[in-house]
Amino acid sequence: MFDKQVILAIIKAMFTYTTKVRLHDTDAAGIIFFANQFKFIHDAYEELLEKKFAQGFQAILKGTRYFQPIVHAESDFKAPVFAGDKLAITVKLHSIGKTSFSLEYTLKRAKTLVGTAKTVHVTVDQKTRKKIPLPSNLRRSLISISK
Amino acid sequence: MFDKQVILAIIKAMFTYTTKVRLHDTDAAGIIFFANQFKFIHDAYEELLEKKFAQGFQAILKGTRYFQPIVHAESDFKAPVFAGDKLAITVKLHSIGKTSFSLEYTLKRAKTLVGTAKTVHVTVDQKTRKKIPLPSNLRRSLISISK
Amino acid sequence: MFDKQVILAIIKAMFTYTTKVRLHDTDAAGIIFFANQFKFIHDAYEELLEKKFAQGFQAILKGTRYFQPIVHAESDFKAPVFAGDKLAITVKLHSIGKTSFSLEYTLKRAKTLVGTAKTVHVTVDQKTRKKIPLPSNLRRSLISISK
Amino acid sequence: MFDKQVILAIIKAMFTYTTKVRLHDTDAAGIIFFANQFKFIHDAYEELLEKKFAQGFQAILKGTRYFQPIVHAESDFKAPVFAGDKLAITVKLHSIGKTSFSLEYTLKRAKTLVGTAKTVHVTVDQKTRKKIPLPSNLRRSLISISK
Repeated sequence: MFDKQVILAIIKAMFTYTTKVRLHDTDAAGIIFFANQFKFIHDAYEELLEKKFAQGFQAILKGTRYFQPIVHAESDFKAPVFAGDKLAITVKLHSIGKTSFSLEYTLKRAKTLVGTAKTVHVTVDQKTRKKIPLPSNLRRSLISISK
Repeated sequence: MFDKQVILAIIKAMFTYTTKVRLHDTDAAGIIFFANQFKFIHDAYEELLEKKFAQGFQAILKGTRYFQPIVHAESDFKAPVFAGDKLAITVKLHSIGKTSFSLEYTLKRAKTLVGTAKTVHVTVDQKTRKKIPLPSNLRRSLISISK
Repeated sequence: MFDKQVILAIIKAMFTYTTKVRLHDTDAAGIIFFANQFKFIHDAYEELLEKKFAQGFQAILKGTRYFQPIVHAESDFKAPVFAGDKLAITVKLHSIGKTSFSLEYTLKRAKTLVGTAKTVHVTVDQKTRKKIPLPSNLRRSLISISK
Repeated sequence: MFDKQVILAIIKAMFTYTTKVRLHDTDAAGIIFFANQFKFIHDAYEELLEKKFAQGFQAILKGTRYFQPIVHAESDFKAPVFAGDKLAITVKLHSIGKTSFSLEYTLKRAKTLVGTAKTVHVTVDQKTRKKIPLPSNLRRSLISISK
């Protein structure tokens, strides 16, 4: 049995983004082009930053101290996804290091798991182009979405 | 002065779709890549079909009688659009013929008009590949969004 | 009868870019998503700038004096285009003004005209965001591709 | 020292596709949007199928016996890629099983490695939607690009 407090903490930590698959996300094979699953998870990440971390992407792009390129991305495709499908994408912290963090994503259409994904982001100083420690406010935000 | 009934009819006829501009919609010039405005208006059209005309795009793609390719599209760009911007896209019937129809779109960020667009769609028989009259139920639906 | 010099001048003025349609350019209707025709013509424009005008897009993006947003774009779709199709896109100057210019495009698969398009570009000062005259070297380059 | 025959066999086995990064492949951060690296590797795969395996993508899409969805994809990003960059993408067989195969890709700009990627493809019967053995001609083609 789960403790009620534990369950509430998990629910609070989860971030879910919903989107609808559009015709331009599909290809002539009739389902989404595989690379577009990566678009969807980045849309979820952008929404996470804005809604949960209070950092709009415009502000991030205009920020002058650092950027956080994705250095690794991977996806598993579990079921075909069609134009018009509604997807719910959940984002969680997978792991966090000194200069980098990793997010994991699950993509569901109603109860069906259609895909999972992972991204690794590294913090780089805008001037020196070298890795720098994760900003402490971002570290706190990321930990708030850990499982 | 406008008659109250007229205003209510116009409001009822309007269809507005809201979306958020994502990083992948922009390019290295810092604003949306111009072709993506056409993506946005098609998203609005797909939503119109589903929400107002009760025709999901999956059903349309699986339909066996006709298809309706876009034979002309045009856009005017009134103001730069950035990642994170919320857009409200209004779709109206511009004109309707025997075999074709034309839609017009306005794109706004809050009160600012950022773009306008127009598409022309023709009804083609799936077997003969020749123009055929607009299906009567679609004609009725389209007239419901005329100004 | 055409004068040989005239024909040679027309051939010299033409700029043709060839590309191949990819799966991700198509959608579940089996043909290219209409907005991707606009992507193709911009690819042709980028190649024109680099190959004929000796201006790589990176240099343009890093330039600090002006930018040239597309303020109008339109396309006509003449024949369906499929994954794997080879397209030849010809770019010509349509018209030129004090601060703006317009390009016209034809898209062919072998001998078949599959589409035509037009774009209008305006020169804007990066600081004042106001229209400024076309740079004279660009004006000369553009005139070299007029019919 | 390498045996001359071994080197020739490796060269013969390699398949390299070259492409140019376009403005629409980039985003407002100034470099390519990460998901577009997956687009590039699929373009290379399509070209491999057509040029080396003599299977145009149109033929594959129209084939009625099986399809081969990508069930896993991953990418590492080694260096930023900009609009106008020329990329050479090499495709090799990573591994081959009874019903599936895996390809690996390296992406280079001149001598600089900008990324690596991997895709896993499974053969599925179009009617039963169950895994079936790789067609023998495709198996032979794939082995021809193994290291």
